[in-house]
Amino acid sequence: MGFLRGGLVLFILLCSFEKSFGSRKTRHLKWDVEYMFWSPDCKENVVMGINGQFPGPTIRAKAGDTISVLLTNKLHTEGVVIHWHGIRQVGTPWADGTASISQCAINPGETFDYRFIVDKPGTYFYHGHFGMQRSAGLYGSLIVDVADGETEPFHYDAEFNMLLSDWWHQSVHHQEVGLSSKPFRWIGEPQTLLINGRGQFNCSLAAHFSNTTSTNQCNLRGNEQCAPQILRVLPNKTYRLRIASTTALASLNLAVGGHKMVVVEADGNYVQPFQVEDIDIYSGESYSVLIRTNQEASKNYWISIGVRGRRPQTPQALTLLNYAPTSASKIPFSPPPITPTWNDYDHSKSFSNKILALMGSPKPPRNHDRRIILLNTQNLIDGFTKWSINNISLHLPSTPYLGSIKYSLKTAFDNKSPPENFASDYDVMKPPVNPNTTTGNGVYMLPLNTTVDVILQNANALEVNVSEIHPWHLHGHDFWVLGYGEGKFTKEDEKKFNLKNPPLRNTAVIFPFGWTALRFVTDNPGVWAFHCHIEPHLHMGMGVVFAEGVQHVNGIPNQALACGLTGNRFMKTTQN
Amino acid sequence: MGFLRGGLVLFILLCSFEKSFGSRKTRHLKWDVEYMFWSPDCKENVVMGINGQFPGPTIRAKAGDTISVLLTNKLHTEGVVIHWHGIRQVGTPWADGTASISQCAINPGETFDYRFIVDKPGTYFYHGHFGMQRSAGLYGSLIVDVADGETEPFHYDAEFNMLLSDWWHQSVHHQEVGLSSKPFRWIGEPQTLLINGRGQFNCSLAAHFSNTTSTNQCNLRGNEQCAPQILRVLPNKTYRLRIASTTALASLNLAVGGHKMVVVEADGNYVQPFQVEDIDIYSGESYSVLIRTNQEASKNYWISIGVRGRRPQTPQALTLLNYAPTSASKIPFSPPPITPTWNDYDHSKSFSNKILALMGSPKPPRNHDRRIILLNTQNLIDGFTKWSINNISLHLPSTPYLGSIKYSLKTAFDNKSPPENFASDYDVMKPPVNPNTTTGNGVYMLPLNTTVDVILQNANALEVNVSEIHPWHLHGHDFWVLGYGEGKFTKEDEKKFNLKNPPLRNTAVIFPFGWTALRFVTDNPGVWAFHCHIEPHLHMGMGVVFAEGVQHVNGIPNQALACGLTGNRFMKTTQN
Repeated sequence: MGFLRGGLVLFILLCSFEKSFGSRKTRHLKWDVEYMFWSPDCKENVVMGINGQFPGPTIRAKAGDTISVLLTNKLHTEGVVIHWHGIRQVGTPWADGTASISQCAINPGETFDYRFIVDKPGTYFYHGHFGMQRSAGLYGSLIVDVADGETEPFHYDAEFNMLLSDWWHQSVHHQEVGLSSKPFRWIGEPQTLLINGRGQFNCSLAAHFSNTTSTNQCNLRGNEQCAPQILRVLPNKTYRLRIASTTALASLNLAVGGHKMVVVEADGNYVQPFQVEDIDIYSGESYSVLIRTNQEASKNYWISIGVRGRRPQTPQALTLLNYAPTSASKIPFSPPPITPTWNDYDHSKSFSNKILALMGSPKPPRNHDRRIILLNTQNLIDGFTKWSINNISLHLPSTPYLGSIKYSLKTAFDNKSPPENFASDYDVMKPPVNPNTTTGNGVYMLPLNTTVDVILQNANALEVNVSEIHPWHLHGHDFWVLGYGEGKFTKEDEKKFNLKNPPLRNTAVIFPFGWTALRFVTDNPGVWAFHCHIEPHLHMGMGVVFAEGVQHVNGIPNQALACGLTGNRFMKTTQN
Repeated sequence: MGFLRGGLVLFILLCSFEKSFGSRKTRHLKWDVEYMFWSPDCKENVVMGINGQFPGPTIRAKAGDTISVLLTNKLHTEGVVIHWHGIRQVGTPWADGTASISQCAINPGETFDYRFIVDKPGTYFYHGHFGMQRSAGLYGSLIVDVADGETEPFHYDAEFNMLLSDWWHQSVHHQEVGLSSKPFRWIGEPQTLLINGRGQFNCSLAAHFSNTTSTNQCNLRGNEQCAPQILRVLPNKTYRLRIASTTALASLNLAVGGHKMVVVEADGNYVQPFQVEDIDIYSGESYSVLIRTNQEASKNYWISIGVRGRRPQTPQALTLLNYAPTSASKIPFSPPPITPTWNDYDHSKSFSNKILALMGSPKPPRNHDRRIILLNTQNLIDGFTKWSINNISLHLPSTPYLGSIKYSLKTAFDNKSPPENFASDYDVMKPPVNPNTTTGNGVYMLPLNTTVDVILQNANALEVNVSEIHPWHLHGHDFWVLGYGEGKFTKEDEKKFNLKNPPLRNTAVIFPFGWTALRFVTDNPGVWAFHCHIEPHLHMGMGVVFAEGVQHVNGIPNQALACGLTGNRFMKTTQN
């Protein structure tokens, strides 16, 4: 009894202690990564799961909290890392989870402590960043609420989380071999789109609206791994939908039948609210939208997700907005919302251009110190198909840059700085005259506290009249999106930059045959990947590496550098 | 002209230099390991290849040569190691190529120099020893000829090399998940048997001898990846067939239609020649047999390989012995030799008992210093199916023993020595009364220069009346096979040990419900795996670890220890 009372006193003391630090917590998580059998789309396959779950557990924290994930690699022969997408890792660049860039991959059987602060509320996610392990299913949601005492700049009654992905039946190992083969074998379109890891391959929830008889109506009990998570709502409330896309390939469009959406957040940054019928979302992006459940409560409504930007061969993903007390088994009266035509880029651009920073948000510096223009091209090396940036296809080194740059290991990567522009006579509207390229792993060295502009320039791919969408994601930073344009970027285009209220993002798309202008300040020492977030494109070399103020980085865990030349260097003094 | 002449002089000088060292060479090889598309059995799949070849390149050397393989890991996310099966690695235990035991797995993008002496002529092979990468196709032949000036103790005119393996259509990643799942999913019997990486899944070379009409006659041009390598011979010559088995599972029997075989070598050791109609070969074993081409030269003859020891569901592998000048397309007159019934263990034992050391071979010490009895059982842990040795299922640590033992890193593995015997009342003829087991990774610490006996004791598996064949392979040593017996080993059995002319082997089989007695001398400092060579059985824990004189090991390359606790320890002094 005395013991119990003592325990109670200690508990109260601990609670007070916690409060005196403004409720900032360290959230301790223990994760095991392993392959397991799973049926994401009703067809059994092997997925990369965490703690027996697919998708991995949702992390929920408050702004200012520290997350500690003790990640144990239970794979048999593969290394693993996890990237915390949208978290800037200020002061902890070694926790960014990019193999070959911020750390050595965690070996089978080993445990790595990912410890970092989530400093900003928002809708984030995490995913594998080694080989194509993201495509294998290694992902999950990371939701950061406002700190205690703070409020969001909008009201809502409750929220739902929707992590979107795409799924292939062929293993990523098989896909990787195809991408690295001569002749090249493309992975093709996904078999299924997933919402929170759930989709239906062999059937449709809306089969009876289909024009064909070949589609079967799904006959699901609801407890299957592939059964849709239904959004159960009360009438006349406001709901926040947190929508994030970790697709390997697909650009998506989401619509809620009969309901308009008000966009309020993009990539963990508040935007000036605007209303739309549907949203486009590219891999690497996240949005929060508000919906008002002001429709007829005796009905249910479709939520539909479809493919954009590539000729779709994948059925829509569907789930239901289910008004209480209507039965969730009641099929909506109308067919699911139709996804806009895949190549209606005006629709996409119109949406992108509506995204502006919430009034009062930080503005970009008026001027840039440096401008890097990055031409995106599809190329060939000895018959192997690649993507290149300013004619260099990124091939990551075996020693993480964070270590090799800090310790000036000059043989670890190409010391020549990659080009900051491309030939002025390059015609972005035509296939490359000379399609050849080279591999490389040079780094853009950026001095601290400078303002950098990046112009992402799209171009025609190898085939005539083809230019693809590429959503580019920057690690370690948000950037301002200063504008989108058509054709080749010119000095004149600069005059049209939005310096008044450009949105802060960590991912921005380049439209076919167009350009996108970004600005950021190099205020975060570390080495940061900047790459197309389409998994096979990155695998084919579509990325660059930025290093800033690496000499200011201290405290890199030994384990993060125990490979390649850093591993060898630090073990040199010992005689084994 | 002057330059050319100078070059010529230098060349002559180099040749003389080489000769003055008795022709002992260092053979430098550069290998890239990567996945590739391949059709081992006429059906396309992904295999793990070396330098674009499957099986990997054949290494050919002379006794006393040094092999240097600069192995670069070109896999995207997997580590890799290669074990040189049958090479004792005297003085180079870090080159034994066992992940978690002799070295850290080589990371993607990194290169490791496997440098070791092949001190003994014989028929060897190499293969992956991490996860189930051997099953993925990572293997090849290693043939060591006698040193210049030496001769083999038998005559032959020419030779052929036959590396035998088994092949599944399901990827090893998928197989591994099944083996580690609850409920357990067994990999099943192989789809195809391969000779030098070639087999036929959809057809048979001998279809018209088949009783069923469902088998198609193969229609191969001969240049296919799956076309059989035909053995073209001249009449009235003696040929050496070098036969090695790197199967993941299958025990095999090989016969040459119309020809008897004289066995002259087993596992790189000469045996007293004996003649047989067919040979049994278990995974991990190698044999040389001599055949005399004394049959009718106008015919061709089948070479057939079939499954033994498990109820076969895999067709025989076939190729032809083709007498010149008879056309290779001429099908033999008779059907292929029939493989002895799978469970005719008397046939198997009869063969094993014929294998005796060549007269004049080194004899074992008369007495042992220590006897370790290893009970092999099939068990359960929380519903997961395992194999255990003295009730411990081996689960390898993340730090290689060679480093953790040398540097006394006591937390790296279980310090408690594993048991050297099992309960005296254990009934090996019945399923375990208590099927539960535990995982562990303790080590049998063996003092240098002692004589160790190992009694491998087989038992009933989980299912009643089932006891399987297990070929056990020892690293770092050959051992003498003192005898095989039925039932539970008793002190009385010792009297029947063959101390006169037991064969030296590196692999020995235990027959169902039987025991096998081995003896070796601990004369090779290092840490050595000893395990069932059936890949899924090892994956399920069927192995032990022997450490001998590790304090005498010097010169371990840093890279071999740059992981786990050794990686961490040696990087500790630095502040990153």
